[in-house]
Amino acid sequence: MTTDRTAYLVLASLATPGNRELGSLIRRTGPAQALDHVLHGAGISQQLTAAVDASLKPNDRTPTVVDHIADDMLRRADRLGARIITPADDEWPPALADLANINHDPNPVHRDTDPPLCLWLRGPLRLDQTLQRSVSVVGARAATEYGAYVTSEFAYGLAERGWTVVSGGALGVDVTSHRSALAAAGATIAVLACGVDRAYPAANAAILQQIGDEGLLVTEWTPSTQPQKAQFLARNRIIAAATRGTIMVEAGSRSGARNTLAYARLLQRAAMVVPGPITSAMSVGCHIELRQPDTVLVTRVEEIIEEIGSVAQPSPTGHHHDEVLDALQARILDAVQPHRATRAEQIAATAGVSDRDAKRTLPLLAELGLVVAGPNGYRRAGGPPAVHREGD
Amino acid sequence: MTTDRTAYLVLASLATPGNRELGSLIRRTGPAQALDHVLHGAGISQQLTAAVDASLKPNDRTPTVVDHIADDMLRRADRLGARIITPADDEWPPALADLANINHDPNPVHRDTDPPLCLWLRGPLRLDQTLQRSVSVVGARAATEYGAYVTSEFAYGLAERGWTVVSGGALGVDVTSHRSALAAAGATIAVLACGVDRAYPAANAAILQQIGDEGLLVTEWTPSTQPQKAQFLARNRIIAAATRGTIMVEAGSRSGARNTLAYARLLQRAAMVVPGPITSAMSVGCHIELRQPDTVLVTRVEEIIEEIGSVAQPSPTGHHHDEVLDALQARILDAVQPHRATRAEQIAATAGVSDRDAKRTLPLLAELGLVVAGPNGYRRAGGPPAVHREGD
Repeated sequence: MTTDRTAYLVLASLATPGNRELGSLIRRTGPAQALDHVLHGAGISQQLTAAVDASLKPNDRTPTVVDHIADDMLRRADRLGARIITPADDEWPPALADLANINHDPNPVHRDTDPPLCLWLRGPLRLDQTLQRSVSVVGARAATEYGAYVTSEFAYGLAERGWTVVSGGALGVDVTSHRSALAAAGATIAVLACGVDRAYPAANAAILQQIGDEGLLVTEWTPSTQPQKAQFLARNRIIAAATRGTIMVEAGSRSGARNTLAYARLLQRAAMVVPGPITSAMSVGCHIELRQPDTVLVTRVEEIIEEIGSVAQPSPTGHHHDEVLDALQARILDAVQPHRATRAEQIAATAGVSDRDAKRTLPLLAELGLVVAGPNGYRRAGGPPAVHREGD
Repeated sequence: MTTDRTAYLVLASLATPGNRELGSLIRRTGPAQALDHVLHGAGISQQLTAAVDASLKPNDRTPTVVDHIADDMLRRADRLGARIITPADDEWPPALADLANINHDPNPVHRDTDPPLCLWLRGPLRLDQTLQRSVSVVGARAATEYGAYVTSEFAYGLAERGWTVVSGGALGVDVTSHRSALAAAGATIAVLACGVDRAYPAANAAILQQIGDEGLLVTEWTPSTQPQKAQFLARNRIIAAATRGTIMVEAGSRSGARNTLAYARLLQRAAMVVPGPITSAMSVGCHIELRQPDTVLVTRVEEIIEEIGSVAQPSPTGHHHDEVLDALQARILDAVQPHRATRAEQIAATAGVSDRDAKRTLPLLAELGLVVAGPNGYRRAGGPPAVHREGD
């Protein structure tokens, strides 16, 4: 019997990431049944049939070969110091499921908008927890000094307050946001449009290596895949869906960052934009977006946090509940360090509350999954915990 | 029998501009009856009674004295090369009547928000016509180079396209907008917070003189009145009400321009704001406003014109009808020079339409009051026509 995890891995290898027909079939029948349909060409389109035919000869469509394909993927990941997760794994971020709901857009920014079926990860953080309090910071590759300054202020300030900074690993705003999050000893995730083993762009090789060592590299493309235009668009949907909101810092009129922002709006995430001088070409895209409805102008980290909510957890259905804690709980949570375990007494002192309040509240916050209790005290759940998952 | 015009003049001399009780009384009974009530203390508040008592001794409340007060005002205006208009005059801008409807605001920006009862004018333009296509450009006194550049681009571009530029005659954004409109040979109006004979600020004496010679100086304050804080707030309501929209170019967090913008929103005029670097103190007020609903970010003259409508006339009730012309009519109107009569053939060539279309459409535009026909052809109705009014 094929496990769901194996079925996801093999299905991911058979069609283009984001394929809507396949996603819809999986939602109807479950992954194992969907794989069965796909392998036997039952009730699937000619296009999908052709894609499967190109990947797998009819004679190879046996349970043994299927297991072999999945094993190959897992071994390949191991060799690269990476791992693969699927929607069947605990580490899978539930927010990505929202991508199934944006297909009704009359003018899709990209046709292959379905949730990914697997993600290749490299790095010490646990993806689902790291994304619980996350925001993406994106923008022009050719950022100006102004854009670089604003990016570093925002990414550093967000990381410092325990927010994970997600971006695309590109030149300009992307790399500045990753670097600033790391400088704040915060969590950062680069979602790539290429294989997890590719350093693209080459100029960012060192920082991508560092993100793989201290943060997370994430991609739905198999190793050795080179980036292509369509892959950048597909990648942008993941950046938007995985986070509570997207901040666009600088963007020319045709910047790809506008595509990420459009996805954020389609997914009802916070779409935040930094204004700039109307005389700057690198703010033209920002101002076009700020003239759209459902777009918020932001000038300070506090305004960003106001938009993405003080504390929230993605629900199992992928929708974020704005479960706001009471003032005391929020204050104590704010005093918990993201990446270093701290004793309850120290947290109480930082928060300016009594030891008794801190000791009573912290276990509750742990129960909510917002902090993690350990032998040396408490740290934020979004920090770098041990990677553990089931099923591989 | 006291004429309405005389009644308005005398009532204006008895209470603070914008007095809501007096405005409401006038709307109920008409100005002559209202004057009668006020002179005899019939059914008016203690406050208003006290204000009238301070201005006029009981023995002086006769028709003769009333006529004498009005005559004094008119002679004083004459001596200063000015004139006075009231709601009883054809030149009165109907849009000001909208000020009667903003009193329900739970947090009034200023208590005395009623329409003015008289306006002192100095300049060759006819106020109502000059305001038909008008927009206000306001902002910080301590504008940066960026603010000055944007102001001059916008004010010049708007004036060039036949829009009257209204501002407050202050340093910074105000004076730059007046200067740029004059440089484009366009119409400009300075609404003052002091008497029409005061040059405030002194540094702007020359440009204020030029506006009085070529544009219009407008104020509801009697000659020799010095500016006071409350008068600036009262003045701002007129700038907002008189125009189709207000553009705020630069503003610190506590700039008075934000008050004008707030009035524009209360009056359902277009509230337009120019963004700037989030690192600039002179854009902080702009960004605060841009985070409010019903505020539009503008970066180009075309976007401003899109907001204030291609063509509109205030209706007799003071509400602007968005009576959009058809494409041909709008195109021909756009080709009519604001301040110089042009022959129909020339207008046709500029618009790129046939002579026949131009000759058929221009009389229609004249009928709508949008262009003025003369011996040398057609010009925009918003240009500098002869001043003529009735009743004085």
